[in-house]
Amino acid sequence: MGHSDFKYEELDTTRESRTGFPEVVFCEGKKDEYLVGIYKKLLEKDGKVFGTRASISQYEVVKKSIPEAEYDEVSRILKVVSADNHKKKDDGTFIAVCTGGTADIPVAEEAAQTAEYFGARVERIYDVGVSGIHRVLSKQSILQDACCVIAVAGMEGALASVIGGLVRNPVIAVPTSIGYGASFGGMSALLTMINSCANGITVVNIDNGYGAGYVATQIYRLASGNESA
Amino acid sequence: MGHSDFKYEELDTTRESRTGFPEVVFCEGKKDEYLVGIYKKLLEKDGKVFGTRASISQYEVVKKSIPEAEYDEVSRILKVVSADNHKKKDDGTFIAVCTGGTADIPVAEEAAQTAEYFGARVERIYDVGVSGIHRVLSKQSILQDACCVIAVAGMEGALASVIGGLVRNPVIAVPTSIGYGASFGGMSALLTMINSCANGITVVNIDNGYGAGYVATQIYRLASGNESA
Amino acid sequence: MGHSDFKYEELDTTRESRTGFPEVVFCEGKKDEYLVGIYKKLLEKDGKVFGTRASISQYEVVKKSIPEAEYDEVSRILKVVSADNHKKKDDGTFIAVCTGGTADIPVAEEAAQTAEYFGARVERIYDVGVSGIHRVLSKQSILQDACCVIAVAGMEGALASVIGGLVRNPVIAVPTSIGYGASFGGMSALLTMINSCANGITVVNIDNGYGAGYVATQIYRLASGNESA
Amino acid sequence: MGHSDFKYEELDTTRESRTGFPEVVFCEGKKDEYLVGIYKKLLEKDGKVFGTRASISQYEVVKKSIPEAEYDEVSRILKVVSADNHKKKDDGTFIAVCTGGTADIPVAEEAAQTAEYFGARVERIYDVGVSGIHRVLSKQSILQDACCVIAVAGMEGALASVIGGLVRNPVIAVPTSIGYGASFGGMSALLTMINSCANGITVVNIDNGYGAGYVATQIYRLASGNESA
Amino acid sequence: MGHSDFKYEELDTTRESRTGFPEVVFCEGKKDEYLVGIYKKLLEKDGKVFGTRASISQYEVVKKSIPEAEYDEVSRILKVVSADNHKKKDDGTFIAVCTGGTADIPVAEEAAQTAEYFGARVERIYDVGVSGIHRVLSKQSILQDACCVIAVAGMEGALASVIGGLVRNPVIAVPTSIGYGASFGGMSALLTMINSCANGITVVNIDNGYGAGYVATQIYRLASGNESA
Amino acid sequence: MGHSDFKYEELDTTRESRTGFPEVVFCEGKKDEYLVGIYKKLLEKDGKVFGTRASISQYEVVKKSIPEAEYDEVSRILKVVSADNHKKKDDGTFIAVCTGGTADIPVAEEAAQTAEYFGARVERIYDVGVSGIHRVLSKQSILQDACCVIAVAGMEGALASVIGGLVRNPVIAVPTSIGYGASFGGMSALLTMINSCANGITVVNIDNGYGAGYVATQIYRLASGNESA
Amino acid sequence: MGHSDFKYEELDTTRESRTGFPEVVFCEGKKDEYLVGIYKKLLEKDGKVFGTRASISQYEVVKKSIPEAEYDEVSRILKVVSADNHKKKDDGTFIAVCTGGTADIPVAEEAAQTAEYFGARVERIYDVGVSGIHRVLSKQSILQDACCVIAVAGMEGALASVIGGLVRNPVIAVPTSIGYGASFGGMSALLTMINSCANGITVVNIDNGYGAGYVATQIYRLASGNESA
Amino acid sequence: MGHSDFKYEELDTTRESRTGFPEVVFCEGKKDEYLVGIYKKLLEKDGKVFGTRASISQYEVVKKSIPEAEYDEVSRILKVVSADNHKKKDDGTFIAVCTGGTADIPVAEEAAQTAEYFGARVERIYDVGVSGIHRVLSKQSILQDACCVIAVAGMEGALASVIGGLVRNPVIAVPTSIGYGASFGGMSALLTMINSCANGITVVNIDNGYGAGYVATQIYRLASGNESA
Repeated sequence: MGHSDFKYEELDTTRESRTGFPEVVFCEGKKDEYLVGIYKKLLEKDGKVFGTRASISQYEVVKKSIPEAEYDEVSRILKVVSADNHKKKDDGTFIAVCTGGTADIPVAEEAAQTAEYFGARVERIYDVGVSGIHRVLSKQSILQDACCVIAVAGMEGALASVIGGLVRNPVIAVPTSIGYGASFGGMSALLTMINSCANGITVVNIDNGYGAGYVATQIYRLASGNESA
Repeated sequence: MGHSDFKYEELDTTRESRTGFPEVVFCEGKKDEYLVGIYKKLLEKDGKVFGTRASISQYEVVKKSIPEAEYDEVSRILKVVSADNHKKKDDGTFIAVCTGGTADIPVAEEAAQTAEYFGARVERIYDVGVSGIHRVLSKQSILQDACCVIAVAGMEGALASVIGGLVRNPVIAVPTSIGYGASFGGMSALLTMINSCANGITVVNIDNGYGAGYVATQIYRLASGNESA
Repeated sequence: MGHSDFKYEELDTTRESRTGFPEVVFCEGKKDEYLVGIYKKLLEKDGKVFGTRASISQYEVVKKSIPEAEYDEVSRILKVVSADNHKKKDDGTFIAVCTGGTADIPVAEEAAQTAEYFGARVERIYDVGVSGIHRVLSKQSILQDACCVIAVAGMEGALASVIGGLVRNPVIAVPTSIGYGASFGGMSALLTMINSCANGITVVNIDNGYGAGYVATQIYRLASGNESA
Repeated sequence: MGHSDFKYEELDTTRESRTGFPEVVFCEGKKDEYLVGIYKKLLEKDGKVFGTRASISQYEVVKKSIPEAEYDEVSRILKVVSADNHKKKDDGTFIAVCTGGTADIPVAEEAAQTAEYFGARVERIYDVGVSGIHRVLSKQSILQDACCVIAVAGMEGALASVIGGLVRNPVIAVPTSIGYGASFGGMSALLTMINSCANGITVVNIDNGYGAGYVATQIYRLASGNESA
Repeated sequence: MGHSDFKYEELDTTRESRTGFPEVVFCEGKKDEYLVGIYKKLLEKDGKVFGTRASISQYEVVKKSIPEAEYDEVSRILKVVSADNHKKKDDGTFIAVCTGGTADIPVAEEAAQTAEYFGARVERIYDVGVSGIHRVLSKQSILQDACCVIAVAGMEGALASVIGGLVRNPVIAVPTSIGYGASFGGMSALLTMINSCANGITVVNIDNGYGAGYVATQIYRLASGNESA
Repeated sequence: MGHSDFKYEELDTTRESRTGFPEVVFCEGKKDEYLVGIYKKLLEKDGKVFGTRASISQYEVVKKSIPEAEYDEVSRILKVVSADNHKKKDDGTFIAVCTGGTADIPVAEEAAQTAEYFGARVERIYDVGVSGIHRVLSKQSILQDACCVIAVAGMEGALASVIGGLVRNPVIAVPTSIGYGASFGGMSALLTMINSCANGITVVNIDNGYGAGYVATQIYRLASGNESA
Repeated sequence: MGHSDFKYEELDTTRESRTGFPEVVFCEGKKDEYLVGIYKKLLEKDGKVFGTRASISQYEVVKKSIPEAEYDEVSRILKVVSADNHKKKDDGTFIAVCTGGTADIPVAEEAAQTAEYFGARVERIYDVGVSGIHRVLSKQSILQDACCVIAVAGMEGALASVIGGLVRNPVIAVPTSIGYGASFGGMSALLTMINSCANGITVVNIDNGYGAGYVATQIYRLASGNESA
Repeated sequence: MGHSDFKYEELDTTRESRTGFPEVVFCEGKKDEYLVGIYKKLLEKDGKVFGTRASISQYEVVKKSIPEAEYDEVSRILKVVSADNHKKKDDGTFIAVCTGGTADIPVAEEAAQTAEYFGARVERIYDVGVSGIHRVLSKQSILQDACCVIAVAGMEGALASVIGGLVRNPVIAVPTSIGYGASFGGMSALLTMINSCANGITVVNIDNGYGAGYVATQIYRLASGNESA
C-alpha cells in the first residue's frame, strides 16, 4: 500500500562548503520516523544537528534515538550540539535581538539561538515596544554597539523604524503573527516594516526568526573578520 | 439633450442644529457651474462656506462669482469666511497637528485649517517622523498639553504609536497616500495605525484631513466646555 | 532545558503618570503561571488589575491566587477592583455604547466595562442595527446627550454612519468579526466604517472593544473636566 | 498591414426571443468606425439601438451617420429610439432609483434610463445618503410602493441596508467607484452591500447601472404581468 | 458574576407589516438557552418560527421545549410550521434552484426551503455545472419557465453566466465556499458572478442561501400577483 | 426528517467519449455512504474507479464494500484498477514530475499517480529546489527528454522558471500550500509562477496535483500519437 | 552624463538549441535606439525577429532601419520574417484560438500570430462568450479537432470551463484585463480560470497572449510529431 | 494667499554622527524652489548632496543654482559630490549588484550608485535572470567573493533564491515594479522574495534601490573594517 520507503530527499552534501552553513531541519509537519532518520543522518555527517519549529512530542521521539538532543520550549529549537559549538572567540562583536512585546519572544529566541548555534554572540533586549518609547531609548547605547540589530515585532511593527534611526549598522526586521483583527497574521507588520521611512532596514518573512538569525550571523562573521566564525 | 437642470441635491437644512456643524463641500470632481451654485446657496443660507479638495482652477471660477473666496494651495481648502470665524475665545485648549514628513503636510493642513475654521486653536508640529525619534521627543511637552493630537503619516505610519504612548488625550491617526512600492496608496499606513499597540488611537480614512479636523474640533469643544465653540 | 525563568517583561512604571491610565493585561495566549505572576505584581503596585480576553479557565487559575478577582463571561474581562473603582462622581456626562446586533454584544461589553473600570458612566443601547432603522431613531435623544458614542457592528457596519449623522459628539466605530462569506473576519465592516460619508467618525481595530472604551474614557474625562476622572 | 476588415463579431440573432431584451452596445473602448458599424447593423435589424458608456466624441461620430441618435451626458447613454419606445402602458407599477450622494447620479441615471428604454416607469430619489437619515425616511412611502428599488451608493454603501429594512420588494444595490482612500474604486461599497444585514438585497458590479436597470426591468415586467413589456 | 439575564434583544414587532416577512433566526453561535427563548417568543407571537444555520445539537435542545420543531440536516434549517405554511395556491409560478455540483446542495437547499417556507413553489435542478454543458442545456425549458432562477455554484461560479444567457427572468447568483487553493472561501466565485458578462444577474453573499431564497420569494410574489403570498 | 435519499447527482455518461477520460471522484468532504455508492456505480459502469483527496478512514469504509480498492497515503488516491490499467505500451515518451522540497511530494504524487492511472509513464525528480541549483541542473538531461514537466513547488515557487529555461516542452506549474507567513496558503507561489519570465509555463490551482496530471496525460497522449493512450 | 553606452544585455546564444525557440523581444517600455539595436542584432544572428507589445511609433522607428519589418495594430506584434516562416507543412494539426468577446481579440491575436510565427496552423473562433452559449456549442466540432485550444476571456472568464468540458486536448486559458469594477485588471478572470471545475485547463498571466501561443506551439509540435516544427 | 514661507522641515543635524550617513533627498514630488532650497542648505552643511528619484527637469532647475550638480538618467540620481567622494581605499571588498532583466537596471543603478556615493566598490552583473540559468551560474565565482549581493528582479523575482543558494554572504533582494498582469506593481516579486526557501535573503521595498544600496554599504563597511568607510 503505497510508498513504504520514502527516500526522496537527497542530502545537499556541498552546502556547507558553498555557503558556510550546514543543512538545517524544518521540523514542523515532518512525520516522526522520517524526522528521526534525518537527525541521525545529519548527526553522522556533521557531528551536530539543528532543527526549528519542533514540537515537544517530536523532541521526545528524537530523544529516544539521540539522548543528547536538547530542546527549548520557547524557541522550539531541537538541536544536537558538538564540542565546537561551545568554543566561541569573543572579539566584542555581537548581535542585538529586540522585541516589541513579550508575545514576540518565541520568534526572537528562534533568531537568537540560531545565531548562537552558528557561533555568534547575542544580546537580548526584550519588551521595548514603541508605545513606551523611553524603553528602547534607554538601550540606545548597546544598540549602537551591535554589529546588527534584529527587530522582532507584531501588531504595527514600528519598532524597526525607531531603531533604524538610532544605529549605524543593519537592522533586520522580523514581523510576527502576533495580533488580531486587521493584523492579517503578520502581514500588516510586514508592510509597516517594508515601508519603513528609516534607512538600513531589511525584512524577512513573518515569524522567520531562523532566517533573521542566519543573516545576522553572516553579518557577524563579516564584522568579526571570520567568514566561517 | 439630457438633463439641462441638475437639481437633485437637497440642502440638509437641519444639519447644523443636529450636529453643530454646517454643511461642507467636497469640491473634487464637481463641475464648475454646479460648484458655483452650491457655494452661492450655502453663502446665502449660512453666511459662510467651507470646501475641501478644491483645485486652483475651481478657485478661480468661484472667485469670479464670490470675490471674497479664499484659497490655500497647500490644503486645497476653498472658503468664504464670516466675521464670527475670526473671533475665538482662547482658554488654553488647543489641538496639536503632527506629521511624519514634509510630504504629509498638505493633509495636515487640511486637518488644521478645518479645525481652525470651526473655531479651534491649533499648534503645528511637522516633520517629526520616528526615524529621527529625538524630533518628536523634543515636542513631548506641547503634545501632552493638547486636548487631542492629530498624527498624519504615510509610509509606515508609526508616528501615531509613539505619540500614543506619550500623551493622555486622544490621538487621531491620519494615514496618507505618500509612499511607493508596497505602500498601496496609504493602505499600509492605515493598517499600521489600526494595529497600533498604543492606546488612545483611532483612525480616519487615508488622506482624510478634513475628517480628522472635524473630530478634533468635536473633542476641542468638549474640552473647552463649549459645545458649539 | 531552556528558559526556566521568563523575566523579560519590564514594568512600565511611569505609564500612569504619563498617560493617566494604569497598565492593563491582554490575557489571551498568556501561560497560566506567567499570567498569575503579572496579576500579582500589578495588584501589589496599583492596588487593582484589569485584563481583557481572558478565558474562564484563566479566571479559575487567577482566582486561586487572588480570590477577589472578578470575571464576566460576556466581555471576557478579568479584573481586581479597588475601593476607588466604585466611587464615581456623576455630572451627567456619559458614553453611549450601541450595537447593530446581539452578536456584537461581547465586543460592546468589553468597551463598556473598560470605560466603567476607568471611571466613566455608560449607557447601553443594543441591537439597533440599520435594517430596522426605527430602532436607532427611537434612541436619538439619548445618543445626542452622550459625550461620545461607541458604535459596534459587524456585517456591513453601517450603524456608525447613521449615528454619525444624528449627533454632535464623536462616534468611535468598532468593526466586529461577526459575519460570514465576504465579511473577511471584520475587514468589510472596517472598510465600511473608514469610508463613512458621515463626519465625526473614527475607527479602531476589529473587535477592539478595549481600545474604544479607552478612547471614550479619554473624551469623557475631557468632557467632564476631570483629566484623571 | 494586419487585419483590414475586422469582422469577428457575430450578431446574436436569437437573443431577443430568448431573453426578451435586444442586443446592447458597451461603447467604451470601441473604435469609431467599428462602433458606427455596429449601430448601423443593429438599427437595421431592430429599428432601435441602445449603448452605454459612450463618450461625447463617440456620440458626435455616430450622429454623422445616424442623425436621430440621442446622447445624455450624465448617463453617457447613446441611443436611437423607435416609435414603440415611447408608448408605455402605466398600471402604476414603477421602479425607484435612489442615490446616496450627488456624485452617484451618473450611475443612477444609467440605471434609470436603461429601465425607461426597456419600457419601465421610474421614480428618481437622489441624494438621500444615510448620514442624514431623515432624508431617506421622508421618502419611505414612495419606496414602499415601488416594485423594486435600485440603491446606488459609493463610499460606505450603507444606503441599501437602510432601504432593505423599509420595503417589501427587492432592492438592487449598485456600488459606485466614488470615494477615495480605502474605498478601493468601489470595492469597499461592494463588500458593504454584499454583507448587508438587511434582507432582500442583491448586488451588481461596481458602477454597473445598466445591469441594475436590466434586472429591475425584468422584475417590473413580472410585477406588471407583461413579460415583454 | 456578569450578566445573568441577557435581555438586550428587542423584538422588531413591525417587521412583518413593513416587509411582508416575519422575523427569522440565525442560529449559528447562539447559546442554547438563549436560542430556546427566542424560538418560544417568536412561536407565541407568530405561530411559527424559521431558523437557519442550526446544528443538530441545537435542534435537539429546541425539540425538548418545542416538540413540533422540524430539522433538515442538509439545509440546516430548524423550523416550526403553522397550518398556513402548507396551503399554497399554485398558479404555475415557480422558482428554479440550480447547483453546479453536489457539494453546493446544502446552500441550494437553504435557498429552496426558505422560499418554500415563505410560500413559493420551487423546482430543483442540481449538479448541472458548466464543465458538462449539456446537463444545463437539457434543462433549458424549465429554466425559461421559472419566474426567477437561483444559481448556486462554488469554484469558478460560471453557472450563473450560462443561465443568464438562456432566460428572460432574473438570475440570483449564490457563490459557495466550496473549493480549495485560490478559491478563497468563495471569493473567487463571488468575483466571477459579479463580473458576469450575462445580463439579469445579481449576487448575494457567499453561502447565503437564505438571502437568495428571500429575494426569490419577493419576485415570486410579484410574479404571482400576490404580495404576501 | 429531511432528505433520506440523496439522489441529486446525475452520472455524466458521455464524458469519456467526449473527453477521453472517465469520471473521477473528489473524495474530500463526501459522506461515507454516499461515497461508497458513487464508487459502486462507477465501478459497475467503467470497471474501474479513481478518487482523489481520500482520507484513510474513507479508504477503510470503501474497502469493506469493494475489497480490491487500493489506497496510497502519500497521494491520498483511492482507486480500483482494471486489468487494462496495467498494460501500457512504452514508446519512450514520459512525463517528468519534479518538486522543490520534500514537503511538496504529496501533491507531486497526486499528479504522478493520476498520470499513471490514465496510462502515462512518469519519472520522479524530487527535492531539487532552486536554493541548491546544482540539484536541478544535474537532472537537465532527463528533463529535456520528457514530453512535459510538472513542476511542484511551494514557498517562492521559482522551480518552474528555472526548468522553463532548460527544456523545449511544456512545463505545468503546480503551486503548493506549503509555507508559512506571507505564503498565503500557496497564493505567493501561484503568483510567482503566473509571473514567470520563462516561456512555456502554464499554471494550475494550488495543490491541484490531479489537474496537472490530467493535462500532462493529454500532452503525453498527443506526443505518443495515441489520443486515448 | 551617465551611461553613454548601455551594453548590459547579453544575448542568450544557446536559447534556440536549448528550447527550440529563438529569442523574442518584449517591446513595451524599451527606448527607441535601444530597441532598434536589439532588432538589428537578432536579425543578423537569426535572420528573423519577433517582438510583442510594440507601439505604432516603435514600428515607425524600427521600419526606418529595417524596411521589411511588419506590424499588426491589433496584436501589436512587430516582426521581421524570414523565408522559412512561410513554408509550413500541413498535417491537419491545428490550434484553436477562442475569445469570449470582441474586446478580447487583441490578446487572442497576439496568441494566434505568435503560434503562426513559430510554424503552427491556427483557427480563430471569436466572440463566443458563455452568455450566448449556443455560439460556442455550434463550434464544438472544430474545437474537438484542435490539438489544443487557447481560451481568451475577460470579465468572468467562464469560457475556459465550458470548452474544457467539450474537448479531449489541453485548454490554455488567458485571462484578459478587459472589464471594469471588481474585475481588478483581469485578476477576477484569472481566479475564475484557476478555479475551473473542468479538467485539462492551465492558465497563463493576464493578457499574456504570447505565452499562450508559445505553449500551444510546444503542444502543436508534439502533436504533429515535429519537435522543431 | 496661503503659506508663503514653507519652513516646516527641520534639518536632522545629528544624523551623520548617529548613523554614519548624511541626510539624503527624495526628490520625487518636491516642488522646484523647495528642492533647490534643500540642495543649497545641505551643500552648505555637508559639502555634498545626494538625491534620488529626480526628474530631468528637476536636474535642470537645480543645475541653475548649483552648476556642479550631476545627474544620471538611468538611476535618476541627482548629486553634488565633494572631493572625498572620489578617494576610496580598495581592500578587495566589493558589493555585487545583479538584475534579472534589462528592465530592472534603473533600480539596480540606483542601488549601485548609492553604494558608490557612500564609498563602497561595486561590481555590476546584469541580465542574468533564472530562465537562462547558465547566465547566473557563469558568474558564480564573482558572486561568492562579494561581501554582499543585491539581487534586483521583477516579474517572478526568483533570482534572489538562486543566488542565495550559491553564496556565503547576505543577499539583499529588491523587487521591481516591472511586469504586467498579476505582477501587481511588484507585489508578486516581493512575495516571492519574502518566501524564498534559500537562506541569507532579506528584502527591501519595491523599487527601493536606494535602501538596498544603503544596507549594502553598511555591510561593506563592516566587512572592510571601516565603519565610516
